[in-house]
Amino acid sequence: MKIILAQQNYHIGNFESNTQKIIEAIEEGKKQQADLMVFSELCICGYPPHDFLEYNDFIEKCNESISIIRSHTQGIGVLVGCPSVNEKKEGKNLFNSSYLLYNNEVVDVVHKTLLPTYDVFDEYRYFEPAYTWHTMVFKGKKLAVTICEDIWNLGDNPLYRICPMDELIRDLPDVMINLSASPFDYTRIEERKSIIQANVEKYKIPMIYCNTVGSQTDIIFDGGSLVFDKHANLLKEGKYFEEDMITVNFLDDGTFEEIILASSEDISSVAWNPSVYDQHLHTDRIYDAIVLGVKDYFSKMGFKHAIVGSSGGIDSAVTLAIACDALGKENVHALLLPSQFSTGHSVDDAVALSKNLGNPCDLIAIKPVFDAFMEQLKPIYKDLPFNLAEENIQARTRGNLLMAVANKFGYILLNTTNKSECAIGYGTLYGDMAGGISVLGDVYKMQVYALANHINRHGEIIPQHIIDKAPSAELRPNQKDSDSLPDYSVLDAILYQYIERRHGAKEMVALGFNKSIAEQTIRLVHLSEYKRNQFCPIIRVSPKAFGMGRRVPIVAQYPS
Amino acid sequence: MKIILAQQNYHIGNFESNTQKIIEAIEEGKKQQADLMVFSELCICGYPPHDFLEYNDFIEKCNESISIIRSHTQGIGVLVGCPSVNEKKEGKNLFNSSYLLYNNEVVDVVHKTLLPTYDVFDEYRYFEPAYTWHTMVFKGKKLAVTICEDIWNLGDNPLYRICPMDELIRDLPDVMINLSASPFDYTRIEERKSIIQANVEKYKIPMIYCNTVGSQTDIIFDGGSLVFDKHANLLKEGKYFEEDMITVNFLDDGTFEEIILASSEDISSVAWNPSVYDQHLHTDRIYDAIVLGVKDYFSKMGFKHAIVGSSGGIDSAVTLAIACDALGKENVHALLLPSQFSTGHSVDDAVALSKNLGNPCDLIAIKPVFDAFMEQLKPIYKDLPFNLAEENIQARTRGNLLMAVANKFGYILLNTTNKSECAIGYGTLYGDMAGGISVLGDVYKMQVYALANHINRHGEIIPQHIIDKAPSAELRPNQKDSDSLPDYSVLDAILYQYIERRHGAKEMVALGFNKSIAEQTIRLVHLSEYKRNQFCPIIRVSPKAFGMGRRVPIVAQYPS
Repeated sequence: MKIILAQQNYHIGNFESNTQKIIEAIEEGKKQQADLMVFSELCICGYPPHDFLEYNDFIEKCNESISIIRSHTQGIGVLVGCPSVNEKKEGKNLFNSSYLLYNNEVVDVVHKTLLPTYDVFDEYRYFEPAYTWHTMVFKGKKLAVTICEDIWNLGDNPLYRICPMDELIRDLPDVMINLSASPFDYTRIEERKSIIQANVEKYKIPMIYCNTVGSQTDIIFDGGSLVFDKHANLLKEGKYFEEDMITVNFLDDGTFEEIILASSEDISSVAWNPSVYDQHLHTDRIYDAIVLGVKDYFSKMGFKHAIVGSSGGIDSAVTLAIACDALGKENVHALLLPSQFSTGHSVDDAVALSKNLGNPCDLIAIKPVFDAFMEQLKPIYKDLPFNLAEENIQARTRGNLLMAVANKFGYILLNTTNKSECAIGYGTLYGDMAGGISVLGDVYKMQVYALANHINRHGEIIPQHIIDKAPSAELRPNQKDSDSLPDYSVLDAILYQYIERRHGAKEMVALGFNKSIAEQTIRLVHLSEYKRNQFCPIIRVSPKAFGMGRRVPIVAQYPS
Repeated sequence: MKIILAQQNYHIGNFESNTQKIIEAIEEGKKQQADLMVFSELCICGYPPHDFLEYNDFIEKCNESISIIRSHTQGIGVLVGCPSVNEKKEGKNLFNSSYLLYNNEVVDVVHKTLLPTYDVFDEYRYFEPAYTWHTMVFKGKKLAVTICEDIWNLGDNPLYRICPMDELIRDLPDVMINLSASPFDYTRIEERKSIIQANVEKYKIPMIYCNTVGSQTDIIFDGGSLVFDKHANLLKEGKYFEEDMITVNFLDDGTFEEIILASSEDISSVAWNPSVYDQHLHTDRIYDAIVLGVKDYFSKMGFKHAIVGSSGGIDSAVTLAIACDALGKENVHALLLPSQFSTGHSVDDAVALSKNLGNPCDLIAIKPVFDAFMEQLKPIYKDLPFNLAEENIQARTRGNLLMAVANKFGYILLNTTNKSECAIGYGTLYGDMAGGISVLGDVYKMQVYALANHINRHGEIIPQHIIDKAPSAELRPNQKDSDSLPDYSVLDAILYQYIERRHGAKEMVALGFNKSIAEQTIRLVHLSEYKRNQFCPIIRVSPKAFGMGRRVPIVAQYPS
């Protein structure tokens, strides 16, 4: 039996293009004389569809797509993910389902059992879990078809009381097939291999795992579909961060006719150790994920041109380099917006950067606009001393100028805030926090440096001076980030403990952190919740990004 | 048995103040020789605590509060809501629980079964549902204690497969007691009475229902605690939108020694009919809810002064009047920001409004700043015609000036955008969409008019000319909203169908709406998703507000 995994990039709600893409893969499968095509979770509508699922109109369009695709399955089996209606009066209205289509018919449908409802996932908001299980029979083989999270409880996951494969294994299936929409974070690739290996070792049958690829606003799906033999050896691994088609021949004796990519022992050794935090870890993956995030945001929104405020600092330099890689240098417009407090090298560095990148770059001085603001505010400000208010006016003048150019020419403003700044509120709302999408909002400052070095790995793209100089917002004379913040190496480590590891001050002290710096940092995180609430979507690369996956009250007194 | 319901306003995560408040009520209960005090759901930490629940430190603080409160229960029973740890390896880490404290001990704990996971609710994200049930025994009475949603499935709610009261009734309890955190919307008060009445009619025992009160960022809890006798007559009804203590005497024969407020028949007749939409419905309640929302946002955040951009239009007028009511007129600063396109009456109307309200008001002309922007942009804009970009610069200049005054003096900017504008993206990001909290973002334009008339019910506060004139953003010569939008009466009705009722264009046509206006409106809602994503929290008064309760992908192509 020839099986093809179609690892594809979908557009949420764009039924026409998703259906077309699926049909093209099926036609290619027919040419290759495949018996069965495996697609990914909710591929019909794209994942995650969120509250679109509450619209009957949306569900009808899903069903229409199934009908169209069904009519292309003469002689070929097709497994696709799609919501289906729960016909019973009891339970939520929908299931998250997998359809087996064959010879122009819907042959079988199974439903997802384990519905992730944590971090960025809200599946229990929409779906009823499966309460009965059966294998699908296709060409004499028994297929244990599950959906994504279904294979993530091997009896030791406290989120769930059920293990669907324990139910399915009673039917003595020949192979496990999992349709997935498993998002990327820098811990994920090893975790995923480990859990699949553990399933194969437990159930002793092969596993075919088809993941989706592509970015959906903030969430990146990295592909990397997998095929394991029954001895838990890795036979096939799909490409990461791009579409792919993977062909396997499943033989009558239950084995695959394949070369082993990695043996069971090799895989165990790469398993992720979640207690380790190294800011340089997997910088290459993080870079690729962010490039895909920018690229898909623009292509799926129908945008072409980006604009970036280029300050001569490291955050905007890395943002600009990523944008040029994702969108093409000619489509990325740098705007230099020096203030009276900007040092000469800032402009020089920003100009040198755009020269290296080859992207267009303009300069507008902000002082005349700042002066006009101050003149109009004089009757109200009177003789009050220069403080944060004036700093914010400058940052917002920049934001306004960037948006003015963006609006006039149809560019999209890329935000340059990093996760450390975002965490502690070191930024101006409607100023440097403006933008359509945040490129670096899920990488701490130390990771931004690692990305800069990664970008320069084959030669200098980001001028070394940008990497070496002390970070500064340049909103008052001789300002440096270190005037008001601890060293980024300390700050990032504390933030990692608080955000990713959910450790409070007490736990951090036990880990050896300074109590007052830890408490002060946590307090800053809490006090800036209102700012992040108005921040743009952040391309997610960590296990805990700001945004949909982290929901914290704004009006609160905790930690007090 | 004397029972007191304590309907209180909590501060999320502020364990000190919540604990203090609960103890004060207990001491008052002791004075009144109460046998049992009933508090509301998760009163220990405040509701909704969101991802704070993922911090062990937070759960420890909950437990410490229980210990402190416990030591005040000599001779008095106390029912409080608090998260509790699931000691089993299986299932999520926490329960949403109700503790019975008595004589300085934790006497009993029961858990919530039905975990709302829809709209603004995310309970399944954190909590394991109860799988076993028992009544609590207190002073010889059997108490069937449930938590909020637990009483909302009478066998006909497709969200749930379990009905916890069906389990508890087997113990032959004497009374139902429900600890609730049930948020307000303009349909909710009748719905709540109906469901409680239906429970009493089904189980034929009395119901004591204690709700919380107060605003938590965007969500308003309206109080209105209820006591029903076993014949489903309403005996007691707590105040709305304020704290209250309600005393009832529960007699040995299972009845209350009370006067009937409303008979079972009266309550049925007020049941909400969800198919009706009348924009004037319950304007008084909506007004009270928004006032509480503004008031609590400021008091719980520790703010005192608000600033409002006063344009002479109806949205800013209603916002200003509400703010003066909530915060005191001397604490609300109006800032008039006329452009070269503002008509003379705009300034006159805004000045007259602040004269009527008695609040301070300043004026800054925006033209000099706008001109400075245009001068700096000239080398890039060249001779391109005036368009939306220049309109946005004006709106953002206003936003920047409002924030400049706010930042200098520690004021909080109140946003004046209404739900109709917010829905179709008729507003400028970082301009008129700026602000700490949105006062009118959940009321459609026609409801804003109703609120204006409500404010004027005892005499003119909002000058009649503001109510009568045609709405305009005044960002280009002779601009009117009606140049680019359908009549608000039509627009609002379509938006209501799309947002609140989840009807697509096809369903709206069947209801008699114009197809192309419906489709165009839906398209505008979709295209402005990215703007709402960066909008401030909206005080929620409808069953479907923008914000946490409505989660829609930004990068999507639906409706296509």
